[in-house]
Amino acid sequence: MADPWQECMDFAVTLARQAGEVVREALKNEMNVMIKSSPADLVTVTDQKVEKMLLSFIKEKYPSHSFIGEESVAAGEKSVLTDDPTWIIDPIDGTTNFVHRFPFVAVSIGFVVNKKMEFGVVYSCVEDKMYTGRRGKGAFCNGHRLQASRQEDITKSLLVTELGSSRTPETVRIILSNMEKLLCIPIHGIRGVGTAAVNMCLVASGVADAYYEMGIHCWDMAGAGIIVTEAGGVLMDVTGGPFDLMSRRIIAAEPVGLGRGRAVVRRVRNHVRVC
Amino acid sequence: MADPWQECMDFAVTLARQAGEVVREALKNEMNVMIKSSPADLVTVTDQKVEKMLLSFIKEKYPSHSFIGEESVAAGEKSVLTDDPTWIIDPIDGTTNFVHRFPFVAVSIGFVVNKKMEFGVVYSCVEDKMYTGRRGKGAFCNGHRLQASRQEDITKSLLVTELGSSRTPETVRIILSNMEKLLCIPIHGIRGVGTAAVNMCLVASGVADAYYEMGIHCWDMAGAGIIVTEAGGVLMDVTGGPFDLMSRRIIAAEPVGLGRGRAVVRRVRNHVRVC
Repeated sequence: MADPWQECMDFAVTLARQAGEVVREALKNEMNVMIKSSPADLVTVTDQKVEKMLLSFIKEKYPSHSFIGEESVAAGEKSVLTDDPTWIIDPIDGTTNFVHRFPFVAVSIGFVVNKKMEFGVVYSCVEDKMYTGRRGKGAFCNGHRLQASRQEDITKSLLVTELGSSRTPETVRIILSNMEKLLCIPIHGIRGVGTAAVNMCLVASGVADAYYEMGIHCWDMAGAGIIVTEAGGVLMDVTGGPFDLMSRRIIAAEPVGLGRGRAVVRRVRNHVRVC
Repeated sequence: MADPWQECMDFAVTLARQAGEVVREALKNEMNVMIKSSPADLVTVTDQKVEKMLLSFIKEKYPSHSFIGEESVAAGEKSVLTDDPTWIIDPIDGTTNFVHRFPFVAVSIGFVVNKKMEFGVVYSCVEDKMYTGRRGKGAFCNGHRLQASRQEDITKSLLVTELGSSRTPETVRIILSNMEKLLCIPIHGIRGVGTAAVNMCLVASGVADAYYEMGIHCWDMAGAGIIVTEAGGVLMDVTGGPFDLMSRRIIAAEPVGLGRGRAVVRRVRNHVRVC
């Protein structure tokens, strides 16, 4: 049977590449930075322009589909996931990086039907890395198949997470205390490239053994989520329950079904307090 | 007058590129990881092999010069800086990254005469970025001149630092508490790519507004130090005193001599407790 969503996925890859060109071009110019929910939650006209561009192309081609876009929600649209075929878009994942020209900036497009992730496209546009995942068909980066790490010993692991954009002292304190507990297990280290989507792609690539974060949104996870699972990784809630795209919380980690149990994901979950 | 050290610098660039090729090749293979001062202070045979290679080439060409190399010191050699022309080498800055194939791994070569940094070469070999700085002649990345940021408002700054390789609870706590104080100023964010040399090159490039770290060594700073100052940045001790290559502490930040005073560097210094 033909894949009902392959055409959408091919279209998403083309769009992500086009959007990436706009982002790369914008990196050469001066930026006008505005703030959203906190002094560290930034937005630029490029975020808005790229989202408009993506939405108008998709709406023209697939008028019956639904959409959730970071900047549309910031502008007042609802962020509700229905059973409709839904495009979930982050025009620039890593806006703070974009503003400072820190070299990790991604265009993220997730596609969800009946609340199930069907495909995801994450284009890390400064690195020129196109990550893709299609349910049941594997995950790839620039054509190379991805495989999540098989590390079961957390003391030999590299984790990825972020300090986040909240500057509320209590939230910052929990985030740092989680890092302290994990570091002192001990583990090899903690990194974070400043975009949830690329952090998740690093898990899919086996570079990082696990990623966790709280406070992020469905548009940060929808593109990379299926890339992680198709690379053999697992997604779950930081509470240990099943992953929910709309929960604003995630752990993405090593493959399921290994003999000695999912040591890394379990220990991350046990050390992370929800905030 | 001809530059007395230009030949040495050209040689350093050639060597760094050659070493980078060995590192990139090694990234394709299995690694045997050993630990040094802590479970997070790693070393591989590639670190040792690259340092041996660099030292043997330099010693052959400049038999009267002195050397300080990370792995030679780990093997028992002294880390003492004299007035001799001295090559200070980190064969792989970012060994934890190297082990996990996290894409920031640098070969760092600094050259110091009469305790003054004359030139520095940092080759970020996965990115294929060759950073160079020669005293009085500017800093460059792949031929493009570098300019440190001129941001004077710390609330609009992006800082770089690392969680470090110590897993001593008290040290980890101070490191995280410094990050907490800085984050809550508030600032845009904190990043760290896992190598001091590349973090400093990000300051030289104007991507990050300041870098600070404690516990690092002269071989982490000797290559990139002159790259920062030649890009218009300043180096100082985290106590606010003058920078000392052998002190194991650094702040690298925005240019000197701006009208309203060096706001970012001053505020970083005021928020960072020494550990």
